[in-house]
Amino acid sequence: MHQTFDAALGINLLHANQEGADHNRAHFNEWGITCLNIMSSPGAGKTVLLERTLAGLSNELKIAVIEGDMTTELDADRLRQYNVPVIAINTGRSCHLDSKMVAGGIHRLAHEYNPSEFELVLVENVGNLVCPAEFEVGEHAKVALLSITEGEDKPLKYPVMFQEADCLLITKMDLAPHLDVDVNRIVANVRQMNPDCTIISVSAKTGEGLEAWFEWLRAVCDRSSVSEQHLSPIH
Amino acid sequence: MHQTFDAALGINLLHANQEGADHNRAHFNEWGITCLNIMSSPGAGKTVLLERTLAGLSNELKIAVIEGDMTTELDADRLRQYNVPVIAINTGRSCHLDSKMVAGGIHRLAHEYNPSEFELVLVENVGNLVCPAEFEVGEHAKVALLSITEGEDKPLKYPVMFQEADCLLITKMDLAPHLDVDVNRIVANVRQMNPDCTIISVSAKTGEGLEAWFEWLRAVCDRSSVSEQHLSPIH
Repeated sequence: MHQTFDAALGINLLHANQEGADHNRAHFNEWGITCLNIMSSPGAGKTVLLERTLAGLSNELKIAVIEGDMTTELDADRLRQYNVPVIAINTGRSCHLDSKMVAGGIHRLAHEYNPSEFELVLVENVGNLVCPAEFEVGEHAKVALLSITEGEDKPLKYPVMFQEADCLLITKMDLAPHLDVDVNRIVANVRQMNPDCTIISVSAKTGEGLEAWFEWLRAVCDRSSVSEQHLSPIH
Repeated sequence: MHQTFDAALGINLLHANQEGADHNRAHFNEWGITCLNIMSSPGAGKTVLLERTLAGLSNELKIAVIEGDMTTELDADRLRQYNVPVIAINTGRSCHLDSKMVAGGIHRLAHEYNPSEFELVLVENVGNLVCPAEFEVGEHAKVALLSITEGEDKPLKYPVMFQEADCLLITKMDLAPHLDVDVNRIVANVRQMNPDCTIISVSAKTGEGLEAWFEWLRAVCDRSSVSEQHLSPIH
């Protein structure tokens, strides 16, 4: 993150973002939607995970996607093939989505569809292991992906993301035999700073772990219908 | 990037950073040092590239490293085994090095060593494909790494890094046989926005491409001694 206090406006930018995130979450709660913020380094496999998720679950759960990218609609176009609403947000030079950008996406969802029909909104953030973890967008839970190719030390070197994650997916497990990376070391490094995080090893190529991921999604959607009654966020 | 204008201070943060970068570069020029800013996503292989570079070239070129990480000295400690000065900078919650942080590193280098003895300073930036490309630190050239595991579309989705790079290393080429990624598509996507960038495919594991990288380093150090006479940056 670059700067969190704007002295001229007299506001803390993170606080202002947090207020916007709480507002977005109130909308999601009102509509009975669970919102997840999906984050990782570039190329860790967020979009292919969403492709597999839409292919596996969109008959069972009513899903919409908010797709954040600096530029292009390449990822949005990939996901539109699954016949779900995909709202693309280009962040320009910004390295993360913020709650105001996502509010724009929510308003488009509410304008173009009946938002109460949806159960799950998946927000794919800009690929970045640092700033997205600090800017809530209104999510009920944070999902981080770490490709096994990134190595064992990343949870220690980029701690905020791994402290904040409710669910960590270790991706590209099919490449494990070709790497000098011990997945147990990754898990131990995450556990040091986040004992409660759900950790699932997956491969979009072989399908390993996808059913466990779907189970986690089903459970988090159920939890949301409970928390909706209290109008409070899950975590 | 989050915010580039501080209204209270009445300064453009990028301009202020640029002034600091020019100051750093003037020091490097004075000492006859070529400085490179090494950037990539987390886990693309910056540190192992530096290990191979120190092992292959530190008898031939006098090298120092400025090592940027949010937290920990894990990477710095790996590089210290090669008996070169390694100055660690922890950026805290910042997602990139800026010229002020690197100025601190330069002052430590000048205080603890005779800086005129060095020919090459390698600055390893925080793993992030967005913001480091916008904040110069005083480098003479920018080196970007893209792991082949990150996929073909990254140059299009994270354009600033690839527009700014003087040299792009496509890393982890040993994994290519196990991926559905066409390296020629990566090259074509980079060429769309940066026709002059040097592109080298490497594998730290097999040694592929390392000699071409060393050749590029030798050439850029030679160019620096020319530009030193003019006290102007290479690019």
